[in-house]
Amino acid sequence: MGTWEQKLEKYAELIVRVGVNVQKGQEVFVLASIEIADLVRKVAAKAYEAGAGNVHVDWTDEGLTRLKYEKAADDVFTRFPEWETAKRNEFVAKGAAFISFSSPNPDLLQGIEPSRIGNYQKAAGNGLSEFRRAIQADKVSWTVVAASTKDWATKVFPDSASESEAVDRLWQAIFQAVRLDSPDPVKAWEEHNAALVKKSDWLNEHRFVKLHYRAPGTDLTVELPAKHLWVAAGSTSESGVPFMANMPTEEVFTVPLKTGVNGHVSSTKPLSQGGNLIDGFKLTFENGRIVEAVAEKGQEFLRQLIDSDEGAHYLGEVALVPHESPISQSNILFLNTLFDENASNHLAIGSGYAFNLEGGKQMSREQLQEHGVNESIVHSDFMIGSAEMDIDGIRQDGTVVPIFRKGNWASQA
Amino acid sequence: MGTWEQKLEKYAELIVRVGVNVQKGQEVFVLASIEIADLVRKVAAKAYEAGAGNVHVDWTDEGLTRLKYEKAADDVFTRFPEWETAKRNEFVAKGAAFISFSSPNPDLLQGIEPSRIGNYQKAAGNGLSEFRRAIQADKVSWTVVAASTKDWATKVFPDSASESEAVDRLWQAIFQAVRLDSPDPVKAWEEHNAALVKKSDWLNEHRFVKLHYRAPGTDLTVELPAKHLWVAAGSTSESGVPFMANMPTEEVFTVPLKTGVNGHVSSTKPLSQGGNLIDGFKLTFENGRIVEAVAEKGQEFLRQLIDSDEGAHYLGEVALVPHESPISQSNILFLNTLFDENASNHLAIGSGYAFNLEGGKQMSREQLQEHGVNESIVHSDFMIGSAEMDIDGIRQDGTVVPIFRKGNWASQA
Ligand SMILES: [Zn+2]
Ligand SMILES: [Zn+2]
Ligand SMILES: [Zn+2]
Ligand SMILES: [Zn+2]
Repeated sequence: MGTWEQKLEKYAELIVRVGVNVQKGQEVFVLASIEIADLVRKVAAKAYEAGAGNVHVDWTDEGLTRLKYEKAADDVFTRFPEWETAKRNEFVAKGAAFISFSSPNPDLLQGIEPSRIGNYQKAAGNGLSEFRRAIQADKVSWTVVAASTKDWATKVFPDSASESEAVDRLWQAIFQAVRLDSPDPVKAWEEHNAALVKKSDWLNEHRFVKLHYRAPGTDLTVELPAKHLWVAAGSTSESGVPFMANMPTEEVFTVPLKTGVNGHVSSTKPLSQGGNLIDGFKLTFENGRIVEAVAEKGQEFLRQLIDSDEGAHYLGEVALVPHESPISQSNILFLNTLFDENASNHLAIGSGYAFNLEGGKQMSREQLQEHGVNESIVHSDFMIGSAEMDIDGIRQDGTVVPIFRKGNWASQA
Repeated sequence: MGTWEQKLEKYAELIVRVGVNVQKGQEVFVLASIEIADLVRKVAAKAYEAGAGNVHVDWTDEGLTRLKYEKAADDVFTRFPEWETAKRNEFVAKGAAFISFSSPNPDLLQGIEPSRIGNYQKAAGNGLSEFRRAIQADKVSWTVVAASTKDWATKVFPDSASESEAVDRLWQAIFQAVRLDSPDPVKAWEEHNAALVKKSDWLNEHRFVKLHYRAPGTDLTVELPAKHLWVAAGSTSESGVPFMANMPTEEVFTVPLKTGVNGHVSSTKPLSQGGNLIDGFKLTFENGRIVEAVAEKGQEFLRQLIDSDEGAHYLGEVALVPHESPISQSNILFLNTLFDENASNHLAIGSGYAFNLEGGKQMSREQLQEHGVNESIVHSDFMIGSAEMDIDGIRQDGTVVPIFRKGNWASQA
């Protein structure tokens, strides 16, 4: 077996062991492009070796997706099939592990009538709302991981001599970001997670009531709920199994108080949103609500995102990532949120995670809302970090503690 | 666009227009291997052009299937997910068109513990029973068509210099069998169907009460229900849309009287059944029931098939295909029932088609059974034709009419 095959196999093992941490008898649900069938088969093999019950793969094909957006009738995009909803819920009920491969062409849907995209986002968001709440409360183990595909790779490395060179370069970047080059990746992830947990512990000890962001184009205050919890991507499912929700991950994050966001914030990287790019945008908040949204590029898609529902007018996540994080230092613009969010401080439009609140995993939807956790059919991270960003934490007694200075953790943190 | 692309596109058009005859606003359900994504996209494009609502593709990957049979726990094979059942039934309820691509590796499951295969056939057969009954009563339009894939093609053309040569040769054979080389394939199919209908009309006029098969290793009598109907693959869905259930197709067929089969019959071609080959087998019948089943190869898989349920001990289809039919004349052993059944007289173990009985499409399950139509979770054609087969038809008054002589239609027919 050549080095390449060995690499892919190591990656498959990392996803199965660290990503979702497959348990004996557990069902596994995989979402993947048909273009990466080779890797998916390796993941399935490793999952069965870990004792998985059935490995189900939901294959996607962007060629078909594009065709549909180009050619189907308008009303097709307003529907989401009942069986799709039932399928996800059935897997959640069985305590399945969910592996999602992210490998999208960042402008797959360029030129498509925005209302089609918006309508389908709404339909799918509603159809998958029960599933999404289960994920956001860690009822099951889940992970989002990446795979290199032609259309994505050629956008990230447009200067490549060939498509296959671009695909290889993107694989190398992915492997590096997920620490596959270390002699023992599983151990490297334990250490990495411990380092992130140390940061979240420090933040939790301070019980900040408010964050204050300052950077060119940004002056924003974000209040935090009294019971907010800072966490890293390492999490624990309802049945007590630790897993890693994103790979790569470099963030520590919590939930903002829904109505406690004020000021304005500017994006620092393009956002690939539903097959289109939104870039150079600025959001203005009053009491948590977005009251103005202007984009240099993709204004209509930004509008569509915010208009998904009432909750999409509010934030659901506040995440800290130092500018010197390895993904940021690679200086690659991945045009894929899984990577770009881990190269930059970011916020998320839409729903908040139940696990970001003390006792939140056991709370009802109503209780979460009472504690200021936003609910929406969307959750979309957008990047605001830069080498010029300062962040202060304000404590109950008014003390101001520097958290970030010039894009990186302040010396106190 | 090269000749090859044009051919594939013509094929896609034939499947959409003649195979299922997609109507405006109709949903389309496609079952296909990820290996033939290129063709599937062309089918989707043609379907949207014909006004299809949504084109849903259920992708399969034999690599994953084999992995599962090798590595999953035993109990996995006894289950069929509820959402899979719900999915099919939802598409039937919406009046979807069903396109199934047949491209199996004929011995995909060689070496796998037979009980795993048998258990899953039972579980899937039960899970899809409502769907199967809908198909067998032509509630919706459906078609089974072929596509060339590596593992299948190399088994059919083992003498090929390369895998890709084998794949090409199988494509050529498929294209020829579905009349794609004729200047107007859609018209060629109209004429072909008309010729088959002429044969079924002749058979229907005779109102045979019994058929008598004679050949080396075969002496079998098959009674027919009073209201039996001979038909060709050209059919009409509940909503009145004509479609072609199999492409290629060369058969005219009807339903036997469940309890009216006596004597013995020998297979003349191997049968690819659930990823294994059964060959050189002989079945003995008493009052319709299989009382003895012996195979030179694959005995355990033959046994498993017959033991699927009580109905799998009886026949559900009697089909006539002349030995001089084009597929037979090609002298290619396709190891795929869709082709081999259309090169040979055949019978089917398992359920009968409601549309093979006058008024049958409107009958309840109980009514169909009262008329002698067999019900089972399986329907598996097996080939019995040869150049040495004679078939007589016996009328109510005892008149004996030659139907086949030396493997071909008798001069009277
Ligand atoms: Zn985040
Ligand atoms: Zn997020
Ligand atoms: Zn048949
Ligand atoms: Zn049949």
